[in-house]
Amino acid sequence: MTTVRLIEYGEAVPEVRAVYDEIMAARGTDWVNNFWKALAVHPPTLRRTWDAVRAVMAPGALDVRTKEMLYVAVSIANNCEYCIHSHTASARRAGMTDAMYGELLAVVGMASETNSFANATRVPVDPRFQVE
Amino acid sequence: MTTVRLIEYGEAVPEVRAVYDEIMAARGTDWVNNFWKALAVHPPTLRRTWDAVRAVMAPGALDVRTKEMLYVAVSIANNCEYCIHSHTASARRAGMTDAMYGELLAVVGMASETNSFANATRVPVDPRFQVE
Amino acid sequence: MTTVRLIEYGEAVPEVRAVYDEIMAARGTDWVNNFWKALAVHPPTLRRTWDAVRAVMAPGALDVRTKEMLYVAVSIANNCEYCIHSHTASARRAGMTDAMYGELLAVVGMASETNSFANATRVPVDPRFQVE
Amino acid sequence: MTTVRLIEYGEAVPEVRAVYDEIMAARGTDWVNNFWKALAVHPPTLRRTWDAVRAVMAPGALDVRTKEMLYVAVSIANNCEYCIHSHTASARRAGMTDAMYGELLAVVGMASETNSFANATRVPVDPRFQVE
Amino acid sequence: MTTVRLIEYGEAVPEVRAVYDEIMAARGTDWVNNFWKALAVHPPTLRRTWDAVRAVMAPGALDVRTKEMLYVAVSIANNCEYCIHSHTASARRAGMTDAMYGELLAVVGMASETNSFANATRVPVDPRFQVE
Amino acid sequence: MTTVRLIEYGEAVPEVRAVYDEIMAARGTDWVNNFWKALAVHPPTLRRTWDAVRAVMAPGALDVRTKEMLYVAVSIANNCEYCIHSHTASARRAGMTDAMYGELLAVVGMASETNSFANATRVPVDPRFQVE
Repeated sequence: MTTVRLIEYGEAVPEVRAVYDEIMAARGTDWVNNFWKALAVHPPTLRRTWDAVRAVMAPGALDVRTKEMLYVAVSIANNCEYCIHSHTASARRAGMTDAMYGELLAVVGMASETNSFANATRVPVDPRFQVE
Repeated sequence: MTTVRLIEYGEAVPEVRAVYDEIMAARGTDWVNNFWKALAVHPPTLRRTWDAVRAVMAPGALDVRTKEMLYVAVSIANNCEYCIHSHTASARRAGMTDAMYGELLAVVGMASETNSFANATRVPVDPRFQVE
Repeated sequence: MTTVRLIEYGEAVPEVRAVYDEIMAARGTDWVNNFWKALAVHPPTLRRTWDAVRAVMAPGALDVRTKEMLYVAVSIANNCEYCIHSHTASARRAGMTDAMYGELLAVVGMASETNSFANATRVPVDPRFQVE
Repeated sequence: MTTVRLIEYGEAVPEVRAVYDEIMAARGTDWVNNFWKALAVHPPTLRRTWDAVRAVMAPGALDVRTKEMLYVAVSIANNCEYCIHSHTASARRAGMTDAMYGELLAVVGMASETNSFANATRVPVDPRFQVE
Repeated sequence: MTTVRLIEYGEAVPEVRAVYDEIMAARGTDWVNNFWKALAVHPPTLRRTWDAVRAVMAPGALDVRTKEMLYVAVSIANNCEYCIHSHTASARRAGMTDAMYGELLAVVGMASETNSFANATRVPVDPRFQVE
Repeated sequence: MTTVRLIEYGEAVPEVRAVYDEIMAARGTDWVNNFWKALAVHPPTLRRTWDAVRAVMAPGALDVRTKEMLYVAVSIANNCEYCIHSHTASARRAGMTDAMYGELLAVVGMASETNSFANATRVPVDPRFQVE
């Protein structure tokens, strides 16, 4: 059950179809995942989001696998079921092994625990952590 | 203003002092950051947390810089001021450049935005994302 | 699967039935949505919550549609599946169009992204934002 | 204490300066608020974010005041101190009165409370909330 | 820096003053803490919140100390600095010792860690956890 | 749909099987709940988490029922469906009645509401809440 109707390619307006075409071309696939079919409820948001995702997730100072793992970590912290599944799958396609995933989980869990300790005790930031 | 009194080395009980000694030895420093001085309110939690952090953050299938960047990403999502500062500093010490940090921010922001889109629309997970 | 048994009208104690009656009368319906049937596990909380929702969501300085859209925005940020569905439906009944919903999504997503940027960088609040 | 150095106009590279110029022109001011000076650590993220904020926050199917109030609601739920201050100020400039702000607070609080009730009890979504 | 002006007793309208009087009487104090002075921006919300807090936090099936500790736990998870301080103080006044607080921290941290593990892996709920 | 394959006893490596044996022995059961079968993707995290849960959740200055109720409260705030179900069931086994659960819900909801009020208004912490 969704809050919007998912828009399939055949019924999409041209500006939505253009984004779907770019997604399939960029990925070398003949299908578009549901996330984009939901965003199609608002074509300007679909366009802006696709352009941004493509730019942000391209390899740069960080490689794609690291970026996808960061995406997974944030999606876990925000508890986004869809994004956890889609980006865990993407991270695996980008080379994340079970051992890497296990360590990712361990770091995310450890951070969540210590975040709660520091937030609970309101411990002051040590001046030595100051950026120069 | 904290919810607990920070425990300094000179006044610490032996099991707390032992953890402080291990922290300083592991890091080659002569100081302990405030986080641990707050956890010292409960020595078993201090001991367990230090042992876990040391194990989880050691290099393994993922290198230390990647682990610290994942820690930063989760700490941002959980909005832990102390942890953001301490682990951004650690990530920098482990080699994170300004360009890497900029890309980390971009990925965290993009994930937060798309997490909200997917959570809002309750889009169903595509079966192709299924792990084998 | 719920953590409490949902209480139907026929089996409800009088103070629960009284709230159900008020809900149906206020809405001009002959059914009560599941949320209230869960809260009925604790009649004082059911009563207090219904009284508060009725008072808070009544039109005032803000109209009902704006209030329902604020409710949706918070429910997305808190990732409450039930509330997202129920209040998106309410907002639509109160006049929210697809275009408005698309812009709501865009604002929620943008806020989530920039929230993470500001939280990450711990940027100081500009004095000019001070309320007089 | 920030995690990045804030970049002032005088020291900014041209692509950063261009964004600052657009911000000041769009707002009719001679200053840029700290948020942008922090994002300037990564010029592509600064550019992308400014373009997106300008597009998303422009009046459309929703007026500016409603958009700013939605921004405030999300920023409260995400607990972003900076964004709460900057967008509460923006909402006030766009016409939000004390009475409207009081009702916004009441709705955000009510949503947060009922979100926790629905999440706690895992109450199933009523089929009648289904979008057509 | 606040988003509203704090309302002191001497300048308060009668309905605000009435709530302040009830707070001081209920607590046997001659001062009102800042939280209420902020809510006074919207007298109906001040009144409703005070009535609800008084009812919810009264001893019942759970004693006051347990209730205050639950309040602290939620406030940590939601990262509310003000509420963490005020309710940690209240829990201490209600008999929470340092040992209890240490165990509270340990449980909150453990829950936060395992919450992230379960959310990350999307593990299905075991049928045996079903309420009868 | 999970992000990892759940590991059953029969196919588990010895260090995983050892943890499963300890879980069943500690609980006097002949089954292991799904959470642990997911963590088994990373045996060191499985081992560390089980050891920590066993230590943290043992009776101490707080009894088991109070600890389980704190666990539930945090799991609600973090919206972890699995943990809400498993720890609500555990709390009930440890003696939590419907009346206690109703009051737990009321406190969690009230805390969530007032957390949002205090976070929204950025009200300064009263010096009287300072720990000695």
